[in-house]
Amino acid sequence: MIGVFDSGIGGLTVLSPLLEKLPNESFLYLGDTARVPYGNKSPQVIRKFSEQIIDLLVEKKVKAIVIACNSASAQVPETHWKGVPVYTVIHPGVVAAQKATVSKRIGVLGTKATVISGAYVREIRAQIPDAQVFVQPCPLFVPLAEEGWVNDPVTNLIAFRYIQPLMQNNIDTIILGCTHYPLLRNAIQRATGPDVKLVDSGEAIAETLKNEITNGKIKAAKGPSQIDVLMSDLSDAQKIWTETILAPIKIQSFQAITLG
Amino acid sequence: MIGVFDSGIGGLTVLSPLLEKLPNESFLYLGDTARVPYGNKSPQVIRKFSEQIIDLLVEKKVKAIVIACNSASAQVPETHWKGVPVYTVIHPGVVAAQKATVSKRIGVLGTKATVISGAYVREIRAQIPDAQVFVQPCPLFVPLAEEGWVNDPVTNLIAFRYIQPLMQNNIDTIILGCTHYPLLRNAIQRATGPDVKLVDSGEAIAETLKNEITNGKIKAAKGPSQIDVLMSDLSDAQKIWTETILAPIKIQSFQAITLG
Repeated sequence: MIGVFDSGIGGLTVLSPLLEKLPNESFLYLGDTARVPYGNKSPQVIRKFSEQIIDLLVEKKVKAIVIACNSASAQVPETHWKGVPVYTVIHPGVVAAQKATVSKRIGVLGTKATVISGAYVREIRAQIPDAQVFVQPCPLFVPLAEEGWVNDPVTNLIAFRYIQPLMQNNIDTIILGCTHYPLLRNAIQRATGPDVKLVDSGEAIAETLKNEITNGKIKAAKGPSQIDVLMSDLSDAQKIWTETILAPIKIQSFQAITLG
Repeated sequence: MIGVFDSGIGGLTVLSPLLEKLPNESFLYLGDTARVPYGNKSPQVIRKFSEQIIDLLVEKKVKAIVIACNSASAQVPETHWKGVPVYTVIHPGVVAAQKATVSKRIGVLGTKATVISGAYVREIRAQIPDAQVFVQPCPLFVPLAEEGWVNDPVTNLIAFRYIQPLMQNNIDTIILGCTHYPLLRNAIQRATGPDVKLVDSGEAIAETLKNEITNGKIKAAKGPSQIDVLMSDLSDAQKIWTETILAPIKIQSFQAITLG
């Protein structure tokens, strides 16, 4: 069983490609919906919440952990936790951006916490020393996605507002540095125009995990796959939304848990 | 010392009129910034978080508690907690709306949690049996206020979207049923037109507390007034914003606390 966690349900956009690429694996998804969002909170608080969740997933005996939240990924540099491998979405996102870019002028959209952490800038500079990086916090994207205004003139207007300054820098690639942002892909692509490549870190981390299993770094499961979901605040609306995002995949169990 | 709490810093719009109307009183403000917002969470979680905070304020020996958060107010029906009187913003807001309305057709703007709770509808029907009530959740208003887009075409557009359906019902009064919304008063008034009266529950609860002190239900303090602030996630940005909203009032102390 592989543990996947996010501050809320945005991480389901990471779980979907994981399920697609790793059909024999079982997943335990944990959404910290009682304390969502993380993206406007301090490094210390995000770190504390992430540690509580990682400890809980380790107790549940997961064989690997995917931090499907950029704000949390930026605060957890560890590659192992009590012997369990921990994967963030930042490194795979940058690897995918490296493949996509020609001009090496790369934009990063993220929450305030992710942008302030500097995690993407550091990782891009480490992998592509001659890259130019331009970052843009987009604090309204998460509430717009949660409001369901994913194809809406208001969202287009806000996307244009955030992205226009980035476009002045002649970037050719944008990393969607928050797991909610793929839900707004249409509005973002409209603001960038068709020539800019959008990198979805969910797709990227799924590719990474597939390689880790092929290389034997994570032991392969033989199926059948099972999906269990834990949430720190579990409402009917969240159950329905989770099922909609993951459809046609069936979820075995939903449970509420207490964190902190 | 009077305890005032909110999910975050929106409750400062309640603290301001309290300071103005009760210049000899001291206040302990608690913002649960690590778990903000409450407005899209379940009744059970909001209730649990509120109880933790009320218990903490009682331990700190406050003489009264003001729940300066509508989403929390809707989940705490108690008028006393371990002997300490507890005031919510809902009853005073409705008293103010009753004074303002002529047509008895009243609109209520709030978070999802506040609207779903039905707390305003029940309270309005109890106080004004022949009133007609029309409610509207406005989930994007809190993030817009936190983004600082308080006078912005995007905010005007979103305000228009939320408020236009309400206006079809010929209301003459709107209760701003979330402590963030007074920060967006201009955009809201632009969407309603100048003839609709906007009721700010912060003003209303300050009037209530003043009466309670005059009537001897809360013992009057003799000053000098002191303001202390506790936050469950305390950043420099929050300190600066708090000082800006409360200026020229000086804050004696800022401290981080752990909740939950």
